[in-house]
Amino acid sequence: MGEPFLADFAALSRIGATPGGGVDRQAGTAEHGKARRWLVEWFGRHGLRPVVDRAGNLFGTVEWVPGRPYVLAGSHLDSQPTAGRFDGAYGVLAAAHAAVSLRREVEAGDLVPARNLAVVDWFNEEGARFSPSLMGSGVYCGTLDADAVLAVTDARGVTVEEALRDSGFAGTGTPPAAAAAVEIHIEQGRTLEDEGCAIGVVTGNWTARKYAITVHGDQSHTGATHMADRRDALVGASRLVLAARQLTGSFEPGQLLASVGRFTVEPNSPVVVPARVRLDVDLRSQEPDVLEKAHQQLMAEIAAVDGDGEVRVSIDSASVRPSTAYPLEGVELAEAAIAVTGLSSRRMLTMAGHDSVNLKDVVPTVMLFVPSRNGISHNEAEYTADADLLNGVTALTSVTERLLAIDLAGDLGGT
Amino acid sequence: MGEPFLADFAALSRIGATPGGGVDRQAGTAEHGKARRWLVEWFGRHGLRPVVDRAGNLFGTVEWVPGRPYVLAGSHLDSQPTAGRFDGAYGVLAAAHAAVSLRREVEAGDLVPARNLAVVDWFNEEGARFSPSLMGSGVYCGTLDADAVLAVTDARGVTVEEALRDSGFAGTGTPPAAAAAVEIHIEQGRTLEDEGCAIGVVTGNWTARKYAITVHGDQSHTGATHMADRRDALVGASRLVLAARQLTGSFEPGQLLASVGRFTVEPNSPVVVPARVRLDVDLRSQEPDVLEKAHQQLMAEIAAVDGDGEVRVSIDSASVRPSTAYPLEGVELAEAAIAVTGLSSRRMLTMAGHDSVNLKDVVPTVMLFVPSRNGISHNEAEYTADADLLNGVTALTSVTERLLAIDLAGDLGGT
Repeated sequence: MGEPFLADFAALSRIGATPGGGVDRQAGTAEHGKARRWLVEWFGRHGLRPVVDRAGNLFGTVEWVPGRPYVLAGSHLDSQPTAGRFDGAYGVLAAAHAAVSLRREVEAGDLVPARNLAVVDWFNEEGARFSPSLMGSGVYCGTLDADAVLAVTDARGVTVEEALRDSGFAGTGTPPAAAAAVEIHIEQGRTLEDEGCAIGVVTGNWTARKYAITVHGDQSHTGATHMADRRDALVGASRLVLAARQLTGSFEPGQLLASVGRFTVEPNSPVVVPARVRLDVDLRSQEPDVLEKAHQQLMAEIAAVDGDGEVRVSIDSASVRPSTAYPLEGVELAEAAIAVTGLSSRRMLTMAGHDSVNLKDVVPTVMLFVPSRNGISHNEAEYTADADLLNGVTALTSVTERLLAIDLAGDLGGT
Repeated sequence: MGEPFLADFAALSRIGATPGGGVDRQAGTAEHGKARRWLVEWFGRHGLRPVVDRAGNLFGTVEWVPGRPYVLAGSHLDSQPTAGRFDGAYGVLAAAHAAVSLRREVEAGDLVPARNLAVVDWFNEEGARFSPSLMGSGVYCGTLDADAVLAVTDARGVTVEEALRDSGFAGTGTPPAAAAAVEIHIEQGRTLEDEGCAIGVVTGNWTARKYAITVHGDQSHTGATHMADRRDALVGASRLVLAARQLTGSFEPGQLLASVGRFTVEPNSPVVVPARVRLDVDLRSQEPDVLEKAHQQLMAEIAAVDGDGEVRVSIDSASVRPSTAYPLEGVELAEAAIAVTGLSSRRMLTMAGHDSVNLKDVVPTVMLFVPSRNGISHNEAEYTADADLLNGVTALTSVTERLLAIDLAGDLGGT
């Protein structure tokens, strides 16, 4: 089983490859479209029927029990701008290979499925080009509105609808109804590597708060405006960046993550005092109390910068992703399915968001991790060893097999 | 004289007009090209011969004394992204109207010119889209190489050569040889307004240091990378922004200007810890000693940020614009020429750079200012009253008349 998977993964990794060994396949770009067409052809060669729904989600379905709902196994092919090649793509391809193995088992009479199977490539998990992230699974799960999502624009004013059309994945298909979901992903942390454990079984997600903030100053000439007359948005915004970093020092190491990832200066000219900075602040914690305290401190810092009189600070949007649990029966099913393969596993939380965080709120959902060297993530140097990748395919296949056979907490019958 | 000038200025201000009352006519854009075509048509209606040279400078010449060099009068039509409508454009149009008045005087036999006259619109004074600033006049004066300049690219990879061609101003003409130069501009400071003075006669420029800096971090996941593992370029760059601001507190108020105008974050995605920030630091002072001390302090701050180990800081380029004097005979000529018009004048320094700073190093050059309300500059709210604009045209006409008649410090015979 190993060689075909590794060969396919190498082929997929060449699409949108960057000189640094990673990929750039932002949602709805030509390279993303190319990777998805590659997957559609792969589906065709392996007897899976491709379906693209209105939110741009791509499914490869196999129907054994007409009319029954599906186990959805997959992740996402879109990436950050200069991303590693494992994030998302590994989970999609692992699910595709699991599907083919299970199809063979069904055909050999070794597995009698109680429901059907769909490999899924969720649209725009990353949220790099189009915000918010987890877009396709959000529409599928009913937390985002399809029309609103299709009208979202990127920095150049291109809509999701246009990007889907341009990349060849503007769909009208009916997505398969879900009975259960499973996703495998690299850990994006060091726990499995540090402990020499093969598979992580996710029991819940860290809680997160995200803020879209604008610092409003007043545009002027860097070479001809007295300091006392300046209202420099970049100075105010830089104070907020450092404030977010300093928040993390208020808690025990590891309790709080805080950072600013997007930070856009206008008009961004060498001789113009910045008029506006738009920045996204991201706070995460395993502990809701820590996050709440950090939130209060951040609000106080924003009030202080705003109150100084040089600039004005507005919070354009703020959202909370609560810490929620993956269903325990799914965790236990996964542990049992992994145990029979002889692989080690441990329970853990996910710090990052995943499409499965959406799915678990509507159907029984299992999330698995494989080790990720040094925990490096969203970086071209992201790396998981071949043996770990193959262990993950084995574990995913075993878990998916059980999800096909066992009626977990009842069929929810789709979304 | 007033009404035609104000009507022409209103017409020119409509090209590339922004909703906020300013203009966006960045160098080599369609709007910039439109403004320049408007000027070429104006030249045609008023008997000036248009010439475009290889660096994209646009001249409107009138030759009275065949073979003799020219007095160059003008400024620039390009603008910052959301700019005021006076910066540069006022100086070009004032020169054009002065030329027409002087042509009428010559035709009436009231002025016997010793040399010829060219109105000039220097290419890319602002340096917003293409760096460096003062580009066209730099090539004209021999401090920049035309081939190198034509190959400069904007943020999207478009070259100066392509932008000039696309905007209709890729030229091959021979620029007129200069005997002297004169430029009028809004002050971009409050001195004239505060003192109720009509015209500033510039005696020298502030000294400036500019640095292009890159802060190198390491890209990672905002939601899955422990704080101890992060190398966040945005945190390091924010420290430098605040350090530049704090520098100004080390000196008497007004002695030092320090700011960061351009600040570009990569990859600039909400869930990615920034890998790189490129920023331009701009320090200016009237006093070379102050600038030198500020430079030393900035270097110490950069070393401190670099030395902390989280990020690496590289200084990609650093330049010094020394404080130099405009020729005294030009200052005295201007004062005498303004006195006969009955307008008040005072000597002053320019804090900002102008094309005349280049010109003065190769030919006798006069720089004049008109008041600018509240000193607002590089902002759509930039404003100079009609009466002040017309006073400036009067002063410029009188100064240009003397430059045409008097052999100032010998004819340098061009560049």
